[in-house]
Amino acid sequence: MVQRYVRVRTIQGQTCYGLLEADRSVLVLDAPPWIGGQPTDLKLDPDSYQLLAPCAPTKIVAVGKNYRDRAAEMGAGVPEQPHLFLKPPTAATADGEPIYYPSQSEQIDYEGSLALVVGVRVSRCSLEQARKSVWGYTIANDVTARDLLEQDKQWTRAKGFDSFCPLGPWSVRDLSASARIQTFVNDEAEPRQSASIGQMVFGIDTLIAYISEIMTLLPGDIVLTGTPPGVGPLEIGDRIRVEIEGIGQLTNPVVARPDLPA
Amino acid sequence: MVQRYVRVRTIQGQTCYGLLEADRSVLVLDAPPWIGGQPTDLKLDPDSYQLLAPCAPTKIVAVGKNYRDRAAEMGAGVPEQPHLFLKPPTAATADGEPIYYPSQSEQIDYEGSLALVVGVRVSRCSLEQARKSVWGYTIANDVTARDLLEQDKQWTRAKGFDSFCPLGPWSVRDLSASARIQTFVNDEAEPRQSASIGQMVFGIDTLIAYISEIMTLLPGDIVLTGTPPGVGPLEIGDRIRVEIEGIGQLTNPVVARPDLPA
Repeated sequence: MVQRYVRVRTIQGQTCYGLLEADRSVLVLDAPPWIGGQPTDLKLDPDSYQLLAPCAPTKIVAVGKNYRDRAAEMGAGVPEQPHLFLKPPTAATADGEPIYYPSQSEQIDYEGSLALVVGVRVSRCSLEQARKSVWGYTIANDVTARDLLEQDKQWTRAKGFDSFCPLGPWSVRDLSASARIQTFVNDEAEPRQSASIGQMVFGIDTLIAYISEIMTLLPGDIVLTGTPPGVGPLEIGDRIRVEIEGIGQLTNPVVARPDLPA
Repeated sequence: MVQRYVRVRTIQGQTCYGLLEADRSVLVLDAPPWIGGQPTDLKLDPDSYQLLAPCAPTKIVAVGKNYRDRAAEMGAGVPEQPHLFLKPPTAATADGEPIYYPSQSEQIDYEGSLALVVGVRVSRCSLEQARKSVWGYTIANDVTARDLLEQDKQWTRAKGFDSFCPLGPWSVRDLSASARIQTFVNDEAEPRQSASIGQMVFGIDTLIAYISEIMTLLPGDIVLTGTPPGVGPLEIGDRIRVEIEGIGQLTNPVVARPDLPA
């Protein structure tokens, strides 16, 4: 089995990184794996932890229009250079956790995306350094309030709500260059999105190198590599599932945001 | 003297929070002041520390066009609601540190701004809770690559370069509602920007409440409240100084970015 790296909260309230075993127990690491965390002799039973997003990024950098057909779907040409935006770290949430539908929006969309987990501090790097700086891969859903994105010029609000960046369930070290990404709504057999990550306009190394020319990336930071065509709306009560071959599947229910703060 | 709260790196390489005394020594606190840090018996001599940005935000949320005359200067009307964007935490830098002029841009502008330091976790709060959630105030310069801002639709690159968010030199707990913010280039006697913070379109409580309806703010997070009219370009070799009455002054030299990574 491919090694699955998780981040969990124990029933005692501690947050730690670990290796997910076949029986769903977690072998605790003494540090985040990207800074060299090693297994301890502590093992968590399957019912003694809660899965968190697989890292706690200091920033989530994302790239728009990075699949040719998605750019066309948006009525836009392929950009000449990566089209960057940021999602706040507070948008991150775990596999299985709700995506809260905010009352400010009347259309929230799923956007399945491959997420890169940065392993080292990287600034103004070469393509070769960029390749080495990617520690691993996870799955993301770049949830977007479409109406607010059209209304605001900046995408900050539309893409920045709490819970608008499911990540996980875990990260893995390796990924095929042609791994398939697919998005499914509820029990539909046909994917709404289906593409090979090889169809990205700007590849992984190019994205990391480009971003690092602007802002320093830090260990545990996340880069969302863009969404394929087939983006569509979510309704309260839906379950949205993003699958990436070689990683797994990330599933989240869509829930009305409670009237009062939690 | 008004109490000045600083964050410093000691010559031993440790990062800590402290109180800046009149003789420039620093009385070390045992935690960030917004989570209740108390004075220890450790005092740092003036030559034994380096000033850092006064907090280490998990996010920097900023508001565009929040002074009426600045909106006019941009050829825009006053927005109906706050116009949000994000700067990455890696953009933060301290008083006295260089603003690096990136080779990608041919025009970088200063934008003096009052910065709010959030003291508590705040989500979907009332105006009254918003007021209480502001722990203190510091000075910011929302440096912006004007040409890249016009070229890219999203402001992420234009406002996201390392060093593009000087913060400091310290934070203070209280601020007059009509405190003056002024920006000076080099030794010019006339300010380039000069306004009362009372001229903001959306006041502090409104901004915090609005942002908290979207994303949870965390202790130490920064909110930039917008820049007054008078924004203008910086050249390599300039020194840019933002002053806010009751806080102090934030000064940074503009330096060519080195050809190779530092």
